[in-house]
Amino acid sequence: MIRASQHRVVAVVGTGVVGRSWMRVFARAGLETRIWDLDPVQTDLAWDWYKSDQKRIRKQGGMRKAVARNERSNVIRCDDLAEALAGATWVQESCPENLETKRAVFADLDRLADPKAVLASSTASLDMTLIAEGLGGAGRCLVAHPVNPPHVIPLVEVLGGQGTDPLAIRRAIRFLERVGQTPVLLRRYAPGFLLNRLQAALLREALHLVATGVARADAIETVVKDGLGLRWAFLGPFDVPNTNADGGIREYFARRGDVLGALWDDLGKGNPLTPELIERVGETLDAMHRQVAPENLREWRDDMIVRLRRLKAMHPPGGEPEPEEE
Amino acid sequence: MIRASQHRVVAVVGTGVVGRSWMRVFARAGLETRIWDLDPVQTDLAWDWYKSDQKRIRKQGGMRKAVARNERSNVIRCDDLAEALAGATWVQESCPENLETKRAVFADLDRLADPKAVLASSTASLDMTLIAEGLGGAGRCLVAHPVNPPHVIPLVEVLGGQGTDPLAIRRAIRFLERVGQTPVLLRRYAPGFLLNRLQAALLREALHLVATGVARADAIETVVKDGLGLRWAFLGPFDVPNTNADGGIREYFARRGDVLGALWDDLGKGNPLTPELIERVGETLDAMHRQVAPENLREWRDDMIVRLRRLKAMHPPGGEPEPEEE
Repeated sequence: MIRASQHRVVAVVGTGVVGRSWMRVFARAGLETRIWDLDPVQTDLAWDWYKSDQKRIRKQGGMRKAVARNERSNVIRCDDLAEALAGATWVQESCPENLETKRAVFADLDRLADPKAVLASSTASLDMTLIAEGLGGAGRCLVAHPVNPPHVIPLVEVLGGQGTDPLAIRRAIRFLERVGQTPVLLRRYAPGFLLNRLQAALLREALHLVATGVARADAIETVVKDGLGLRWAFLGPFDVPNTNADGGIREYFARRGDVLGALWDDLGKGNPLTPELIERVGETLDAMHRQVAPENLREWRDDMIVRLRRLKAMHPPGGEPEPEEE
Repeated sequence: MIRASQHRVVAVVGTGVVGRSWMRVFARAGLETRIWDLDPVQTDLAWDWYKSDQKRIRKQGGMRKAVARNERSNVIRCDDLAEALAGATWVQESCPENLETKRAVFADLDRLADPKAVLASSTASLDMTLIAEGLGGAGRCLVAHPVNPPHVIPLVEVLGGQGTDPLAIRRAIRFLERVGQTPVLLRRYAPGFLLNRLQAALLREALHLVATGVARADAIETVVKDGLGLRWAFLGPFDVPNTNADGGIREYFARRGDVLGALWDDLGKGNPLTPELIERVGETLDAMHRQVAPENLREWRDDMIVRLRRLKAMHPPGGEPEPEEE
């Protein structure tokens, strides 16, 4: 296998919303990025989106024209899969989320790709043990699940199937770091991996609180974006109590374990979704967004995340505090 | 009752970690802030902390000396409760979290405070119905639960007991907005209110994932601070799917309801805490923090949250994007 620094060519297989964002990650890291989709219209749409999104960022002064051109010149649109895979040592598959589709695509990838290539799936839910079952190259198949959109949010969940070579996992971690992402390792498969499970746990309680009349959906939005989210942008769920309690997390759990236990018993259980509840949440959000349309809000969010990441890169923990103007 | 703009004097009763942070919120909003604690040593400690924290912020260039002095000149240290309450129209109680203590303190507050004053408790868990039971002034008693520390994080959870006058609640919301906080209204009591319930739901799943060997605690930290937390700093748990899905949240729940339901069934239940699990998480965090001590990390986090809030204030959703240097 090859080192992270030796990757020159990558293939993006499937260029929907997730694949096209991966394309930007690889192209801006300076890699030759060969893109292909079963539906050629999708490949062109991805290309158009790339150009218009770069234009939008340039308008805000966030990117020079020369940089944008240089990034795009790394992208090569391919008409067939074999052409897309030619010379690629990293293959990022982002096809529809369906086991039979993924199995068929991975059989093609394993047959056509360079023997040195790692084959990574963007799947958010499927088990690589099943996707790569029976493939000669199962050892090089793994999951690299991004957060949408990966060119804005760096986290990637990495895990193998039962047949995955530990060397391929280590290689994936290093490669993803090299292209500017933040990989985390899962030791085994669990439905929803880490991110979607943690998100689902919070979302269920949010729905439960609306369903039981404790608060409206807009109050819960505020609790997260003006409360919990401000801390979680910098420290995770263990480090928040670890840094709040003077004795650290051991003392926190020793002192608060009973209160937490009672709270856990009281949380919502099962599936709170009903058509009435969905409509109630939808109406509250509609009222919240009379001023700003959801698509503009998504664009705003992504721009703000880029700014926040720049802020974090400028002020790492433990670094010298920078003087700042008032 | 009086208008939000008519408050001139506030009393901070109990000057531990939470009370002293409230003191800064009120003093920097230009209010005469009278502080008192049952233990006079605590009052002096709060004062010393205020001075040293301002000094630290000044060193980073975040505050002028004159501003710091002006803020502090609004604080008056009082030797007895009646003196602290003299003329105060908002009383913020932050005594130890114990029903009998709170009941005794609120009886004193109701007897000694100006009849126009709102009596607000910082309690994180107690029901105002019980705290204010039997008081003549139960109508003006309510919960205003901050997130630690309130001079950094703006969210305040507001709710009344069964006897609370709705006018007092409306007045509290307006007053808290005036001093720069972000109040949210709870329609009824639930243990843990909103924030601690949502946080507990995520924390339980985080513990469950470590306990069942899916990932290490440091991986979960990364998933939150480089993934979920980046989005939740700007949009809450309903608006993330609402803006991600092209058809909004109704379409999201219609399409993903079954997958979510299965995920909810699979999440950790009950109380995952064991001495072994606490130790395992503690050891991972210790290893993560060999470079930066937890108290420095807490200071860093608070400084970063101030910077993030400034960023959000500069770029509101729906505003014109600002040109930015590269």
